[in-house]
Amino acid sequence: MKFAVIITLKKDVLDPQGKVIEQTLQSMGVNSLKNLRQGKYIELELNETDEKKAHNSIEDMCKKLLVNLIIEEYKIKKI
Amino acid sequence: MKFAVIITLKKDVLDPQGKVIEQTLQSMGVNSLKNLRQGKYIELELNETDEKKAHNSIEDMCKKLLVNLIIEEYKIKKI
Repeated sequence: MKFAVIITLKKDVLDPQGKVIEQTLQSMGVNSLKNLRQGKYIELELNETDEKKAHNSIEDMCKKLLVNLIIEEYKIKKI
Repeated sequence: MKFAVIITLKKDVLDPQGKVIEQTLQSMGVNSLKNLRQGKYIELELNETDEKKAHNSIEDMCKKLLVNLIIEEYKIKKI
């Protein structure tokens, strides 16, 4: 079973890396760009047939290692 | 208009960072984990009302700056 975890900075947290990419694109002539934020994407494959169990196990991994819950938030999606 | 770009390493490209996360999780007791790969996630907001134009403009940004097409691939999604 394959899942994707998308980890983004919380809305109010400054994203300097995203800002640099945004400014670079703008200086390259992209005028329509209004805002850009960068996050992380993790693709996981689990040996688990029960979707709910798999989901719970990923929640656990997020809380224990993958996500810094103070400044980041995450979404889990089956793919 | 908001879009997400998901950038992942091509299948045959080694992902050492993902491997480290995978091994760390396994050593923390996650037995069901079979495979893990890490990628990048970029959220863009565009001042553009035409979805097709926006999509093309993002394709352009990917090719010119965001994605290393030799080792990475990307997906664009409207969000």
